[in-house]
Amino acid sequence: MLDIKTTKTTTPKELPDKDDPLKFGTIFTDHMFIMDYEEGKGWHDARIIPYQPISLEPSAMVFHYGQEMFEGLKAYKTEDGRILLFRPHMNAKRTNNTCRRLCIPEIPEEDFVQAIKELVKIDKAWIPTKEGTSLYIRPFIIATDPFLGVRPSHTYKFMIILSPVGPYYPEGLNPVKIWIEDEYVRAVKGGIGEAKAGGNYVASLKAQIKAYEEGYSQVLWLDGVHRKYIEEVGAMNIFFKINNVVVTPKLNGSILPGVTRDSVIKMCNHWGIKVEERLISIDEVYNAHKDGLLEEVFGTGTAAVISPVGHLRWENHIMQVEDGGIGPLSQKLYNTLTGIQLGKIEDVYNWTVEVE
Amino acid sequence: MLDIKTTKTTTPKELPDKDDPLKFGTIFTDHMFIMDYEEGKGWHDARIIPYQPISLEPSAMVFHYGQEMFEGLKAYKTEDGRILLFRPHMNAKRTNNTCRRLCIPEIPEEDFVQAIKELVKIDKAWIPTKEGTSLYIRPFIIATDPFLGVRPSHTYKFMIILSPVGPYYPEGLNPVKIWIEDEYVRAVKGGIGEAKAGGNYVASLKAQIKAYEEGYSQVLWLDGVHRKYIEEVGAMNIFFKINNVVVTPKLNGSILPGVTRDSVIKMCNHWGIKVEERLISIDEVYNAHKDGLLEEVFGTGTAAVISPVGHLRWENHIMQVEDGGIGPLSQKLYNTLTGIQLGKIEDVYNWTVEVE
Ligand SMILES: Cc1ncc(COP(=O)(O)O)c(C=O)c1O
Ligand SMILES: Cc1ncc(COP(=O)(O)O)c(C=O)c1O
Repeated sequence: MLDIKTTKTTTPKELPDKDDPLKFGTIFTDHMFIMDYEEGKGWHDARIIPYQPISLEPSAMVFHYGQEMFEGLKAYKTEDGRILLFRPHMNAKRTNNTCRRLCIPEIPEEDFVQAIKELVKIDKAWIPTKEGTSLYIRPFIIATDPFLGVRPSHTYKFMIILSPVGPYYPEGLNPVKIWIEDEYVRAVKGGIGEAKAGGNYVASLKAQIKAYEEGYSQVLWLDGVHRKYIEEVGAMNIFFKINNVVVTPKLNGSILPGVTRDSVIKMCNHWGIKVEERLISIDEVYNAHKDGLLEEVFGTGTAAVISPVGHLRWENHIMQVEDGGIGPLSQKLYNTLTGIQLGKIEDVYNWTVEVE
Repeated sequence: MLDIKTTKTTTPKELPDKDDPLKFGTIFTDHMFIMDYEEGKGWHDARIIPYQPISLEPSAMVFHYGQEMFEGLKAYKTEDGRILLFRPHMNAKRTNNTCRRLCIPEIPEEDFVQAIKELVKIDKAWIPTKEGTSLYIRPFIIATDPFLGVRPSHTYKFMIILSPVGPYYPEGLNPVKIWIEDEYVRAVKGGIGEAKAGGNYVASLKAQIKAYEEGYSQVLWLDGVHRKYIEEVGAMNIFFKINNVVVTPKLNGSILPGVTRDSVIKMCNHWGIKVEERLISIDEVYNAHKDGLLEEVFGTGTAAVISPVGHLRWENHIMQVEDGGIGPLSQKLYNTLTGIQLGKIEDVYNWTVEVE
């Protein structure tokens, strides 16, 4: 159990209007959590303080060598006023997987979840309730040694900030158009693709801009070795429903093991829908589309929940899915997932965790 | 021409003792350079101010999505008191190559070099003169938008800090032992390997620690696709002298185009030594060693200059080079390069730039 020292703000900010549809990631709440790490001393000095800038040496290693990780999850307010988190222990576990890959000291799972709970409780008035909104929770760790030279830092800061958010994509539940990238690579087996590390995201920007310029809102990555197996989308895992079977790339070391991905697989299994986690090549998708067997395509992620894909472009081929509408499985997954998250549907999976 | 506003420190720090061998990257000088970027306004507000911490929002994009780049070069004081930079325009060009890959706004080359010159001039008393020391110059750019979501930032800071340094490796000119990594991958074609981006360095830590634990000081990376072609060392490019020919991996998109690498190639050409920039597999190195043709191996980098490699380990094979001593070519390159940098040898290549 962390002993969290709390200092409340004396100048609370104004809450956003409750009808504000909320842009993603632009507004932050009144408080934040910080905890420091020092070699020999471990994680210490857990505290909740007013949301404020942080001060770092210009030589702090995070600015130079990219030793940083983050997580993302959400808190929801139910109609009867309870506060629910969705599978926070999965994020705690993934944090530690990322930490091991990036040589960052791990954080005990229970401490991770406790810190989130206490912070969310203090800023609970910030949890929005308008349809499609929630409180986005962003835990992250940065390396702070004032040192130039390539080695793991000996000091770190673990922080959590909160942001009331609306839909991640302006499209909302409308199908997005996806660009299949064949020049740039996001991550490769043996690299840090399965870690939630800043370095994976900066690597994705150039292709994302190219896609935007071509009128596409997201990039679908192919593997870096063969340049033919499907990996994932910028901030989502990807699923294909082909001839009544749901197929998604297996976790191979270069894609993020999404919490939503795992939840979708479990829901499909529960409903008796066949799911395959395996290699899936772009040719297979292309051929399935040509043969009229590509029934649905959707992305999954905390920020975007379920995001139907209506249109895929690979080289000069354009694949239109489901006449550009949302498919029945995507819709059912979206309804069930958000229903559970908002406490409207019975949580038979035991996924939600209440903040008391 | 930048209009740089200068504010001098009123509390200068104590200079290190002139006989201090100086650890790498731990001491910083009295001043730093900063310039801000804002979309629509461009780079502005160039200033030199006392060395001090910087204050950033916890949501600053650099902490989350790894949008950061850095450079490294050195200033030297000659025996007759002149201050020399080594090929700073190469670093300016590489900065902009990196910026393009990471979707960071570019910096005019002349502004980059001017900022370095003015800062070095103000802190010139910090340039150490003991054999093997110099003033390390660290320009870097960080993304500062207070925003969660994957896209390029609209605001940045470009900063330069200075550190008086000794040898990068404790071994100095003594040969280092190198571990050839076959599990982890640093970068892959299509990724950001040729950019000087933090994400490449954090990806290297895990293998580096494994190597240390086995008694090796550096990692030599193999390519991420075939896992057999030589790439580079953690912070150096690599050269092999095989049967009288100098061979180094060609620039293929996944390795850093080193300034020292380029200088070594030009010096060898000038001396009539045959140099090949091409694919070189680990098997070729292994076989050359077996046949007694692996004459020298050395790394090249600003921090390490020329670093002879005495010992390579690949899987269970150990290759001992030059009986563990420094080879004649490595020694000649080291002497010539440092001679030019320190103004002791005529600079026939026009590489040095004087800070007046
Ligand atoms: C690269 C990447 N893939 C997939 C996901 C989806 O993961 P999750 O469902 O845990 O949010 C995310 C977002 O978190 C991501 O950033
Ligand atoms: C990954 C990497 N390769 C090679 C080098 C050598 O480049 P340079 O000679 O420009 O210092 C460096 C250091 O700058 C480096 O970080």
